Amino acid sequence: MDFIINNLFDGKSKNSKIGDFQDLEHIDGVSISALNSGLYDKKRDDLVLFYFRNGASHASVYTQSNIISENIKWNKKIKASKINALLVNTRNANAITGEQGYKSLIELSIKLSKHLSERQKTDEENPKTINPKEIIFASTGTIGEKFPIEKISNSLPELVNKIKYTQNKLLWMKAALGIMTTDTRPKMAMSECKIGSKKVKVYGIAKGSGMIFPNMATTLGFLFTDAKLSSSILRKVLKKNIGSTFNAISCDGDTSTNDMVSIFSTNIIDNPQILNENDKRLKHFNDSVHEVLLNLAKSVAFDGEGASKFITINCKDCKTELDAKKISLSIANSPLVKTAMAGEDPNWGRIAMAIGKSGVQIKINKLSIMIGPFVILENGKLCKTYDEFQVSEYMKNDAIEISVKLGLGNKSFTSYTMDLTKDYIEINADYRS
Amino acid sequence: MDFIINNLFDGKSKNSKIGDFQDLEHIDGVSISALNSGLYDKKRDDLVLFYFRNGASHASVYTQSNIISENIKWNKKIKASKINALLVNTRNANAITGEQGYKSLIELSIKLSKHLSERQKTDEENPKTINPKEIIFASTGTIGEKFPIEKISNSLPELVNKIKYTQNKLLWMKAALGIMTTDTRPKMAMSECKIGSKKVKVYGIAKGSGMIFPNMATTLGFLFTDAKLSSSILRKVLKKNIGSTFNAISCDGDTSTNDMVSIFSTNIIDNPQILNENDKRLKHFNDSVHEVLLNLAKSVAFDGEGASKFITINCKDCKTELDAKKISLSIANSPLVKTAMAGEDPNWGRIAMAIGKSGVQIKINKLSIMIGPFVILENGKLCKTYDEFQVSEYMKNDAIEISVKLGLGNKSFTSYTMDLTKDYIEINADYRS
Repeated sequence: MDFIINNLFDGKSKNSKIGDFQDLEHIDGVSISALNSGLYDKKRDDLVLFYFRNGASHASVYTQSNIISENIKWNKKIKASKINALLVNTRNANAITGEQGYKSLIELSIKLSKHLSERQKTDEENPKTINPKEIIFASTGTIGEKFPIEKISNSLPELVNKIKYTQNKLLWMKAALGIMTTDTRPKMAMSECKIGSKKVKVYGIAKGSGMIFPNMATTLGFLFTDAKLSSSILRKVLKKNIGSTFNAISCDGDTSTNDMVSIFSTNIIDNPQILNENDKRLKHFNDSVHEVLLNLAKSVAFDGEGASKFITINCKDCKTELDAKKISLSIANSPLVKTAMAGEDPNWGRIAMAIGKSGVQIKINKLSIMIGPFVILENGKLCKTYDEFQVSEYMKNDAIEISVKLGLGNKSFTSYTMDLTKDYIEINADYRS
Repeated sequence: MDFIINNLFDGKSKNSKIGDFQDLEHIDGVSISALNSGLYDKKRDDLVLFYFRNGASHASVYTQSNIISENIKWNKKIKASKINALLVNTRNANAITGEQGYKSLIELSIKLSKHLSERQKTDEENPKTINPKEIIFASTGTIGEKFPIEKISNSLPELVNKIKYTQNKLLWMKAALGIMTTDTRPKMAMSECKIGSKKVKVYGIAKGSGMIFPNMATTLGFLFTDAKLSSSILRKVLKKNIGSTFNAISCDGDTSTNDMVSIFSTNIIDNPQILNENDKRLKHFNDSVHEVLLNLAKSVAFDGEGASKFITINCKDCKTELDAKKISLSIANSPLVKTAMAGEDPNWGRIAMAIGKSGVQIKINKLSIMIGPFVILENGKLCKTYDEFQVSEYMKNDAIEISVKLGLGNKSFTSYTMDLTKDYIEINADYRS
């Protein structure tokens, strides 16, 4: 089962289509519970609890925005070495909610820890008390609306009551669906690897851009592993891999107040102790985390609001990785490039425009541009074999690759985005009523 | 006639609608000639010549892109103290055209100067020879296509032959239409003022975003005055006013390879000599240049591709002007804010999101957000008088104002943009054939 999903997004895999998810199974030490607490006027789950009955080492990265939600403020203050639960709500971002929003989290953490402690007392294997400060929160939804504390608080007893020790693919699906907003499909990815001789699992779920009400884009990603790894090692592995995965996708260049990607390890597997992030025995685990993060991040990009095409933008041969990143994201964020992709129009002048505006110094006589396998510009000159019709035929694919070579060094960066369609406008311009 | 156009964009002026243009009349020393050289498969002018029979002092600002067109390379090398002509072509940007593009400009400058010299010889008042290095070029259109030197070159004799010494509103209209691409209306603005006791004119025309083939957005703006002013003074006045006008508009955040705003003075009016840009006698002229630039810039924003609404974004009470500019442009460039405007949806959470992602440090309990005259967020709290229905009614207007106060200082910046509609996608995603 190792490393089978590298090709989820190349459209070549026999049994998978672009944007497919993977089935997740039981992972020891993680319990899932989800229900409908009535945050939407709909039959759908809106509250998801991840419970770690033996605690979990934990690391998170958060939005870079200077306006952050109350739950992210709460999480940043949590210093516990082990986390016991993650509670995720949709429909309300708990951002710009002031005191009411923050106090609600204090209240929820106390009530949830009480119910979890009561349940845990009956656990003969592991009787223990849960501390409110061992709980973290994720929220996604409307900014500035009163946080719906009553509905969420009233649902906590049932949510705890529903906890089952054994997970299966249906429970993971319920969790992946329960955290969705305007996502059109659940996002789940997995990988298995070894630390020393011990097999460990890396599972992940995510949600992407957009809420029906009010269309605030928030990215949430949660990874779970049964490996024995400290929070400090998890933090280093997460930080090492976030730049080329979740920080390499762009749907519309807008940044949420609530973005959050976390990894939790239940420490159930007795793998060799890893004290240093450069320990060679961590390599496969690191690769697995990268793979799961990348597949989830690609799923988020491909399910960007209104997307009809998944676009990969490789920028190569740059002086620095930062240069490569600037150019790659300048192309990924250009509305003119993204509308050309939607129109299946090999309008490479717009790619050149986006390169030019990126702020990176280039040498035009060293610049090359490719769409898919077709060279268009080569060392600053239009390629003699360039056939516009051929490239526009290629662009009818669901997955399009743009490659840019600067010819100034050996650094590169790849970003992922989707095309910009009328549906994006429709989803986002429709009045919320 | 002085200062009548400040209110072209407030929708309150009795006889003008938002986006209206002003009539331009004769301005001494400027001659206009325009024709159809067949660059499009259409009956429309595509080549416009501005001829200064006594020469003109001149200053230009150009795109900040690192990929610039061949004509901008040419212009940047021109060191002549006086310019004799500006030749503008549409349909082809002369960008990434390499040697062929640059050599074409050498050829055109030689041929055009020859024809102009021949014509000038018969001018008894002012017989003189025109130097090829006293000609500058503006281009807008497709990137990377062979520059259509033959068609343009073949049209030069007729273009020179058509030059008339007296201009009228029809000739200016012909020029404003002749430089258009996907613009839906011509852009003309004017102001009159005094330098000392002498009345001088400031006229301007511009083109905005978008080309039918292939939708590459380029902004061109040309100002003309009969004042006696050196190139050095013009340069300072232009630089002083470009930041709050053409550099304060954003249609889609994309930057062209060909952007260019120029000012030309024919020196016909015998106003007092101005040697220093801080000379108080220059104040009214400076105001007039600002007014014309601002009206043209607003016209470009309002005529942005697919626009249905003109949006003004005031950011006030910031520590620095750069902070104010970053926030104002972060809002102006946010697709989620712009689609909410199109949907007439007072979704102020998206404005908060754009403030948060701007990178500027804010204090949430000092932050206020207004849409039109309606206060929504006041010192970080939802305003008690906020009535969503009232604000959505206000948003049915063609012109919408967003105001943000940071409460951290006294610096401000105002930017201008338009909403993001399905028409933007339609214009830009349609295949070029």
